[in-house]
Amino acid sequence: MTELWLIGIGTGNPAHVTREGWQAIREAGAILVPEKGAGKDDLAGLRYAIIEEAEASAQVIPFEMPVRDESLPYDTRVARWHDEIALRWQAAMDGTDGPVALLVWGDPGLYDSTLRIAERLSPAPRLRVIPGITALQALTAAHAIPFNTVNGPVTVTTGRRLRDHGWPDGAETLVVMLDGECSFERLPPEDLTIWWGAYLGMENELLEAGPLAEAGPRIKAARAEARAAHGWIMDTYLLRKTTG
Amino acid sequence: MTELWLIGIGTGNPAHVTREGWQAIREAGAILVPEKGAGKDDLAGLRYAIIEEAEASAQVIPFEMPVRDESLPYDTRVARWHDEIALRWQAAMDGTDGPVALLVWGDPGLYDSTLRIAERLSPAPRLRVIPGITALQALTAAHAIPFNTVNGPVTVTTGRRLRDHGWPDGAETLVVMLDGECSFERLPPEDLTIWWGAYLGMENELLEAGPLAEAGPRIKAARAEARAAHGWIMDTYLLRKTTG
Ligand SMILES: C[S@@+](CC[C@H](N)C(=O)[O-])C[C@H]1O[C@@H](n2cnc3c(N)ncnc32)[C@H](O)[C@@H]1O
Ligand SMILES: C[S@@+](CC[C@H](N)C(=O)[O-])C[C@H]1O[C@@H](n2cnc3c(N)ncnc32)[C@H](O)[C@@H]1O
Repeated sequence: MTELWLIGIGTGNPAHVTREGWQAIREAGAILVPEKGAGKDDLAGLRYAIIEEAEASAQVIPFEMPVRDESLPYDTRVARWHDEIALRWQAAMDGTDGPVALLVWGDPGLYDSTLRIAERLSPAPRLRVIPGITALQALTAAHAIPFNTVNGPVTVTTGRRLRDHGWPDGAETLVVMLDGECSFERLPPEDLTIWWGAYLGMENELLEAGPLAEAGPRIKAARAEARAAHGWIMDTYLLRKTTG
Repeated sequence: MTELWLIGIGTGNPAHVTREGWQAIREAGAILVPEKGAGKDDLAGLRYAIIEEAEASAQVIPFEMPVRDESLPYDTRVARWHDEIALRWQAAMDGTDGPVALLVWGDPGLYDSTLRIAERLSPAPRLRVIPGITALQALTAAHAIPFNTVNGPVTVTTGRRLRDHGWPDGAETLVVMLDGECSFERLPPEDLTIWWGAYLGMENELLEAGPLAEAGPRIKAARAEARAAHGWIMDTYLLRKTTG
């Protein structure tokens, strides 16, 4: 039975990798590296930099990410795309020796399809998941703020859900990922504070924070500017109700 | 100005420490180590083991954790306790050379009072927070499950809140920490699946999963047994609505 290791590598800083992750990178027999993926060369480069710095002896196997068929309805499109990626992994894994590893952005469990693609492999490999630092932790650490209020709940959600459903009932703290549209703009800004971060853990990390009413427009401008300058952006933010 | 480094060390496995954390442990001038804290010798031992394995040259300064005054109302009791801990840190930090570090369980931002205690220090030190693997990631990695459903939200909460407020409106996935009472028992078990873990990342890690109706009682028994055997337990679980 093949072993498949999903190794969380953190959010762009090679120093986010845990000792367990580092060790696994060194012990893997093969490492599959997506050639495009998020379509961001900086991100593929990071994987190679980590592999090199860890002095991994693994066979490094690049594979090309398939293209999504935009003519299909969303669910089918994603399902087919995952099927196709699984086939490419399978092909790339053929003839490898020892455990096969994938370096997964952040933590393999958080808004990531790697586990769902791995489920499609047949024969099913033995899975090992190595946790990694998420964008959530990179965000709160960079701002030196707690994730939660004292014993309070936190909702982790996506930009789309925030747009479609608004502020979740009963939420005190909301963390928003995968938001390409500054969806915080749809919220009544009174009594909300925002902590925002882009390129967290990376050289060009950006941070902004403050009452949503004044920080919101600042973030929108900073985001647009950074996106134009780099050609891509990854950002996350935390919103908290100001308790009066 | 003093530098205070809050270093997330993960949930009990020294290999959870990130390369950034490891480096910081080696570079710190002094490391404050609570003598009691969670009251669990195994946990204090882990800190010393990490310091030793990292070959830290820091001055290691043990400090005794104050006792909470149980006669006070909860909020005052906790506030006074944090004040007192801050004073002890201050005393321990006096005369140290170079950055002072604290090794924080999991991630410093997640259900942890370290940041709130650090705020009480005066003069205020320069804070550096180094993210760590949380119990949430240790849980999902151990079970090899995703944290969220596809683009779905996740609510992170405590046992007390689950008891007091029940299943949060609109939640799909609930992660529960700080639950000493198997509060999942209060939920109608239909359509819920549970993934539970205790001593995650540690030698005596325990895992259970299944439909809540059948896994719940199994977890309750396993938890009571383990707690009796070890004298303490730390456990976390994830509940997900079964979509029909
Ligand atoms: C597909 S999800 C992957 C999340 C990843 N598995 C993790 O654990 O953080 C991508 C989203 O994560 C967030 N993200 C990832 N890396 C980031 C970074 N370096 N800075 C800011 N946000 C980041 C952004 O919200 C982005 O839209
Ligand atoms: C005071 S909180 C600290 C959380 C920590 N800062 C983190 O990032 O995971 C303690 C709670 O975390 C969870 N926890 C911490 N370590 C754990 C472990 N090794 N196994 C299972 N649960 C753990 C339990 O729910 C416990 O009640």
